[in-house]
Amino acid sequence: MTSITIRRARRDDVGRIVAMLADDPLGSARERLEHPLPPSYFDAFDALDRDPDIHLVVAQDGEAGVVGCLQLCILPGLSSQGAPRALIEDVRVDASCRSRGVGEQLVQWALTEARQRGCKLVELLTHNTRTDAQRFYLRLGFQPSHVGMTLRF
Amino acid sequence: MTSITIRRARRDDVGRIVAMLADDPLGSARERLEHPLPPSYFDAFDALDRDPDIHLVVAQDGEAGVVGCLQLCILPGLSSQGAPRALIEDVRVDASCRSRGVGEQLVQWALTEARQRGCKLVELLTHNTRTDAQRFYLRLGFQPSHVGMTLRF
Repeated sequence: MTSITIRRARRDDVGRIVAMLADDPLGSARERLEHPLPPSYFDAFDALDRDPDIHLVVAQDGEAGVVGCLQLCILPGLSSQGAPRALIEDVRVDASCRSRGVGEQLVQWALTEARQRGCKLVELLTHNTRTDAQRFYLRLGFQPSHVGMTLRF
Repeated sequence: MTSITIRRARRDDVGRIVAMLADDPLGSARERLEHPLPPSYFDAFDALDRDPDIHLVVAQDGEAGVVGCLQLCILPGLSSQGAPRALIEDVRVDASCRSRGVGEQLVQWALTEARQRGCKLVELLTHNTRTDAQRFYLRLGFQPSHVGMTLRF
């Protein structure tokens, strides 16, 4: 396992995170990896950074810098006797750092945080084509119990 | 179509909503439909009610009262050029009011709200066994594009 630190994302990480989101067959069509980055990315960062229920974290490798990211949302709701629910989004690991435990450390961080916040359920959607990701989450204890349905405007 | 009004849930709707969440093979084991209701439900209601990004709405039928519910979460995030994402949760329609368009009006309300809030993506998880629900969402334009993975503590 690579020795990494999981820490809260900062505004100056936004470029690295967007680069990882864009470095992907599904993500490349959706992102605009330009210099300078479109301001909408920074507006979104500011919005999530001030929300106490949204946690955007990065995996920091001492030498390589930021090599992974994950967003955890803690969502209040009535079901399950009013326990909050956790949603994991935008898990990415830099292509140069795959299979070294970075993704696992990010997800384990999220599971620990979700448990500490009183969540009884953690959920995520992974694209049907990402069979490697599905195996990865199975290994960490997730079940493919649901159909993830999406609608894009 | 039944003529209903979609409105923001109030604290005095919590009992009706929990009754709908519990009236379900999957939900019945998770909820505690007691009189009085466990205070955790009201604590959760207060938490979501003060969150401007969480919208718990009910379908109000003039005669029958509250006959459906839906929770919409508007989630900031960096992906898709920083557009917020919408998550639909806890869609329920009272057993006596099925197939009368109540669910469709609830979901259409959520889609309109998500679009107005600038979302580019709406997502939801529906249990593998809920094939009727999957057909319903397909009809409204959703695609079964993802695997919905869950982990319960």
